[in-house]
Amino acid sequence: MAKFNDVVIVGFGLIGSSLARALKKADPEIEITAVDKNHDYLNYAMDNNLADAAYDYFDSYLAAADIIVICTPVGQMGATAEAIAPFVTSKTIITDVGSVKQSVIDAVEKVLPYSEMFVPAHPIAGAEKSGPSAGFDSLFVNRWLIITPIDETDLQAVERVTALWELCGANIDFMEPRHHDLVLAITSHLPHLIAYSIVGTATNMAEDLQREVIKYSAGGFRDFTRIAGSDPVMWRDIFIENKESVLDVLQRFNEDLSELQKAIRQDKGEFLQSQFTKTREIRNAVVDSGQAGRAPYEEK
Amino acid sequence: MAKFNDVVIVGFGLIGSSLARALKKADPEIEITAVDKNHDYLNYAMDNNLADAAYDYFDSYLAAADIIVICTPVGQMGATAEAIAPFVTSKTIITDVGSVKQSVIDAVEKVLPYSEMFVPAHPIAGAEKSGPSAGFDSLFVNRWLIITPIDETDLQAVERVTALWELCGANIDFMEPRHHDLVLAITSHLPHLIAYSIVGTATNMAEDLQREVIKYSAGGFRDFTRIAGSDPVMWRDIFIENKESVLDVLQRFNEDLSELQKAIRQDKGEFLQSQFTKTREIRNAVVDSGQAGRAPYEEK
Repeated sequence: MAKFNDVVIVGFGLIGSSLARALKKADPEIEITAVDKNHDYLNYAMDNNLADAAYDYFDSYLAAADIIVICTPVGQMGATAEAIAPFVTSKTIITDVGSVKQSVIDAVEKVLPYSEMFVPAHPIAGAEKSGPSAGFDSLFVNRWLIITPIDETDLQAVERVTALWELCGANIDFMEPRHHDLVLAITSHLPHLIAYSIVGTATNMAEDLQREVIKYSAGGFRDFTRIAGSDPVMWRDIFIENKESVLDVLQRFNEDLSELQKAIRQDKGEFLQSQFTKTREIRNAVVDSGQAGRAPYEEK
Repeated sequence: MAKFNDVVIVGFGLIGSSLARALKKADPEIEITAVDKNHDYLNYAMDNNLADAAYDYFDSYLAAADIIVICTPVGQMGATAEAIAPFVTSKTIITDVGSVKQSVIDAVEKVLPYSEMFVPAHPIAGAEKSGPSAGFDSLFVNRWLIITPIDETDLQAVERVTALWELCGANIDFMEPRHHDLVLAITSHLPHLIAYSIVGTATNMAEDLQREVIKYSAGGFRDFTRIAGSDPVMWRDIFIENKESVLDVLQRFNEDLSELQKAIRQDKGEFLQSQFTKTREIRNAVVDSGQAGRAPYEEK
């Protein structure tokens, strides 16, 4: 497997900057080009030696790239691909890190001149804070990178994207795009929506009560605020782009919550205890799967 | 403040055993008596020098106690107090660690011969695992201990309970019982109910999908499984004993969730982004309050 010479990272926030860090650590000879409209992000990249070049526009420099990684919020990926399109060659691999795959594929594939070189992908990794200063080089270590190829996708391009993420310490897996979107709606999108909602409930409370909720947040609420502190633009896009699966799993959740609500109202202790015993088994399965340990960012 | 000579801990699970550990560490001369119907728990207490005596029944040994701490699930506290009642003196302080206060007060106060010696209290601390082997001596360090006195409560008894928990490193606060139950419904009971529900949704899925949900749980679901791994009996009791406040805050939550659901369905990106920005402010307030750091148990 040939080495990577020139990697262009479009969108230099938490994920983009962490990717740069991980690649530079794995192979200091990789040339990294940072692209972002935010000049603070570009300055950060150059000042911290995370990039060898930085641009706030797309131009012919893109033709020199082995691989372009789109790390913008998912709602901007189509427009980003369209802006990149005039400058890519038939050898330029284009991949992304979007948390939603089908809508990104729909938006990106049609605007690229060589759609066989597009490798849709999603690293299951994140952190509470956003922006390049929140990034770190171990973000992807032992995390899953899910590739969701489309019919046209070139196999060698997939191998190159696999190699790129293996350099960062990720484990690679493959899925159908729509199935990815359903699984992630359950494991990530619904939990975020719920956390946003429960913390949002506190924002509507009287000031005194809100102060107490914050003070005594250690009983469980605190864990939700961490999730509900995630990037607002990124998550706005995810919910809208994965609307169908999110609303589907939300419906299932609402049905199950109503059942618990009814059991509480009717003092059905046995039912509650049996439900809570089942969820404990799921917890044990998560622990057994090796996914229960803290993500690297949590160990910082 | 006189020292504690003899502390009786009734219910020797996670909280009871952690209290024993913390007290023994602070003052090895305190005599601790463990009471539990589970002989494995009593053996664990004696084998690990967490208690100086162990009983599976109540008897005249209780009369020697300075203070009796009831650490059973909240649904059993009334019956426990009733069984203790014949053996207590007018100087025996009785306190508890229940996560719900009004219903415990209602159940306990009427069966005690000296209700002025009852000091209702609640340490806001916990861990994922239950049972005495899951306990540890720093569980209460820098955590809140909320005392919810009733009209009759003797002030000196309150001071002694305060001293006991300060020995364990806790910070003390005071609240009205019903207000405590509302605040905790928001900060702890609702988050647990939601986590039980969302993880419960996964238990109803086809086996293949469930396996994938577990495998890719790092995207947010994992954090909910930790909460949903909490003790089923303890939480069954909490929801039923604090039914009124739990159903009240659940209603507010459902209304807010419906609003987010509608916004997703109607592509209202601006609304979503503005809601998620507000919740981020709550996260920042939690961080500023010093409650965002991991609980000691999370650092293990």
